[in-house]
Amino acid sequence: MQAFHPNGIITLLSDFGTDSFYVAEMKAAILGIAPRANLVDVTHGVKPQQVAEGSWKLLRAVEAFPPGTIHVAVVDPGVGSNRPILIAQVAEQMVIGPDNGLLEIVAARHTPRGVWRVKLDAFPATERFHTFHGRDVMAPVAARLVKGEALSHFTEDLPVAAMVDAESKHRLARREGETVVGRVVYADSFGNLITNIMVDDIPAGWEPQRIMVEIGTTTIHGLSRTYSEVPEGDWAVLWGSSGQLELAVVRDSAAQRYGEWQEAQVKISRLAL
Amino acid sequence: MQAFHPNGIITLLSDFGTDSFYVAEMKAAILGIAPRANLVDVTHGVKPQQVAEGSWKLLRAVEAFPPGTIHVAVVDPGVGSNRPILIAQVAEQMVIGPDNGLLEIVAARHTPRGVWRVKLDAFPATERFHTFHGRDVMAPVAARLVKGEALSHFTEDLPVAAMVDAESKHRLARREGETVVGRVVYADSFGNLITNIMVDDIPAGWEPQRIMVEIGTTTIHGLSRTYSEVPEGDWAVLWGSSGQLELAVVRDSAAQRYGEWQEAQVKISRLAL
Amino acid sequence: MQAFHPNGIITLLSDFGTDSFYVAEMKAAILGIAPRANLVDVTHGVKPQQVAEGSWKLLRAVEAFPPGTIHVAVVDPGVGSNRPILIAQVAEQMVIGPDNGLLEIVAARHTPRGVWRVKLDAFPATERFHTFHGRDVMAPVAARLVKGEALSHFTEDLPVAAMVDAESKHRLARREGETVVGRVVYADSFGNLITNIMVDDIPAGWEPQRIMVEIGTTTIHGLSRTYSEVPEGDWAVLWGSSGQLELAVVRDSAAQRYGEWQEAQVKISRLAL
Repeated sequence: MQAFHPNGIITLLSDFGTDSFYVAEMKAAILGIAPRANLVDVTHGVKPQQVAEGSWKLLRAVEAFPPGTIHVAVVDPGVGSNRPILIAQVAEQMVIGPDNGLLEIVAARHTPRGVWRVKLDAFPATERFHTFHGRDVMAPVAARLVKGEALSHFTEDLPVAAMVDAESKHRLARREGETVVGRVVYADSFGNLITNIMVDDIPAGWEPQRIMVEIGTTTIHGLSRTYSEVPEGDWAVLWGSSGQLELAVVRDSAAQRYGEWQEAQVKISRLAL
Repeated sequence: MQAFHPNGIITLLSDFGTDSFYVAEMKAAILGIAPRANLVDVTHGVKPQQVAEGSWKLLRAVEAFPPGTIHVAVVDPGVGSNRPILIAQVAEQMVIGPDNGLLEIVAARHTPRGVWRVKLDAFPATERFHTFHGRDVMAPVAARLVKGEALSHFTEDLPVAAMVDAESKHRLARREGETVVGRVVYADSFGNLITNIMVDDIPAGWEPQRIMVEIGTTTIHGLSRTYSEVPEGDWAVLWGSSGQLELAVVRDSAAQRYGEWQEAQVKISRLAL
Repeated sequence: MQAFHPNGIITLLSDFGTDSFYVAEMKAAILGIAPRANLVDVTHGVKPQQVAEGSWKLLRAVEAFPPGTIHVAVVDPGVGSNRPILIAQVAEQMVIGPDNGLLEIVAARHTPRGVWRVKLDAFPATERFHTFHGRDVMAPVAARLVKGEALSHFTEDLPVAAMVDAESKHRLARREGETVVGRVVYADSFGNLITNIMVDDIPAGWEPQRIMVEIGTTTIHGLSRTYSEVPEGDWAVLWGSSGQLELAVVRDSAAQRYGEWQEAQVKISRLAL
């Protein structure tokens, strides 16, 4: 492990809903230990229990925030079970989340410098009622890390390979001959469809105007640079501001236009000359 | 009154809606007086004017945050009227809100160390248009408390009994012979039904697996420890992570399944051997 | 330009939706440059691409926050195009936003002390994928201002008149003989209809109880001081807590009652004696 230098920022990402009290309970738990932590909400609007959506938004958080940031991610259909809690050091940041795939996209894109499993018995429940791992384990882990406490106090080392298994690679876009095959991973608040196809998944030589994108029975020719290039109501494909391929209907909702977009396959190929 | 030592945190709870500008106006009013206050949103998703829901969420905030925290709660169907604004010191924290029952559950569960009424004429409106007490009274009260100003500058003492009257006790679950009778007080963002039955309302000797819970025409046998113990689509009853009894439908919305859940009665009793 | 003294606060206003990742990306960009900036969300619930609604909420933010605050406003249907980014100094605060009318209501109500255009080439995109001006230009501009950097490093001066043109004046309420004519500019989270008629648009001598308000086919007699004066279900008109005329249906949604309220005309006149 390389040294980790906390910058004071702890981000929170969850599927609790923005108004949920659970978010406030996690903040209270952090501030009770680290009163000067700088708390930033990434989003609490991940669809309930949609680990895939959460894993891609967590990737974007890691790529957006400065070195020294600690990210806490809670999308956990198995909450209440004794699922392990993992910590990964990625690109001079720390990521904390349940061992259910939520950290896998981050780990597949940025090989971790270290991976640890939290010793749950270092965070004893003090109450008769059941444990909420976000508040009772992940929040104090983040608070102790932001204060500079050593990981060895409450974790055990895991091999980095535990985080970068074959399965997680499957969740990335893949090359099939002359086609790049990916899928829609979530819809943003404008109804744009965000895919798992990243800008570096496309061979460098492919010219944007000679690219063909297929989703369901719709085919779109050429990538746009901005929505303003495309007539209102038409499909547009472009690289989103974080480097993920986005499918949009200009000034309309692609999610509504397309219908059942969850995990819809998206194919990119080059038009013949 | 015992001394109050502010920790810098001011929480905000309201029914304004997360996107509401009113929240920002309250924050602006606080930061104009106390620029270093550490503002934390508890929730602004209390259903409009649902004082009961707000009072239970405020209880959870008080139980979650560290000593020295100041809580500002605004759920106020009477906004604009000259309803008094109260301050209560509870468990080394301060709670500020309108005198409409919003503070009563907190006071019924944690006997206040002091109760004060804000002198409204200490907060003169500087504008021709009408007063918004959240911004014009409660926010500056919180800001002045977080800076260590003495309560005597802008309040008058009330007897503590003013806050712990018989009526508020009725809002807690009660024992009727061998049954504990409570009600649903709100639904969380997953559609789980949260009741006013707390873990310490149940006699210590009752075994979880021999408990029977009734809501409407539905009867559920046994308390679960986690949702993962219960088949998808079945009702589950468990102690929520803050010690309130929750009724859920696993991986579904109990609120939708049940229908008109507002104030629905919930009864707990022991199964005969 | 008079000197600007940042107080550390940067507010964010957008149409991204509260759960949107774009908000977090802007915060990450600010904190990467100015880790101690005090970030406050004004609202991210402006209806998508509704510049008029955004411009009025921005006015309220400017009027609410203390001197030294920096406001970043992103409601930008032209995002992705090379639309200029403006900065205006207004009432000892700084306002940053796209040159699409979003800053015009602020400028029409508070004559700017200075107006600048951001040199986009001072903010080179470091990535292959397209630029998100909120994150890549406006956020770093705010961060550099909060750290005290001189505007001359990354802007060019504009004449103040560029911001206070005739068109923006049209967006304010206007006098037509003995009538004040305005329109609904947005609905708040309770469904109250907020107009562009400000308290100082009404002649000082008009008595509230002798005012008549018309919207569509509905006529309301007299202004109320508070909702509690008006029977449940009736229309009420009053000055909102920020000095804008509001039309409400007591304990109900005026937005739903009225129907297509967007830009609906509202007329105020005096009842004959």
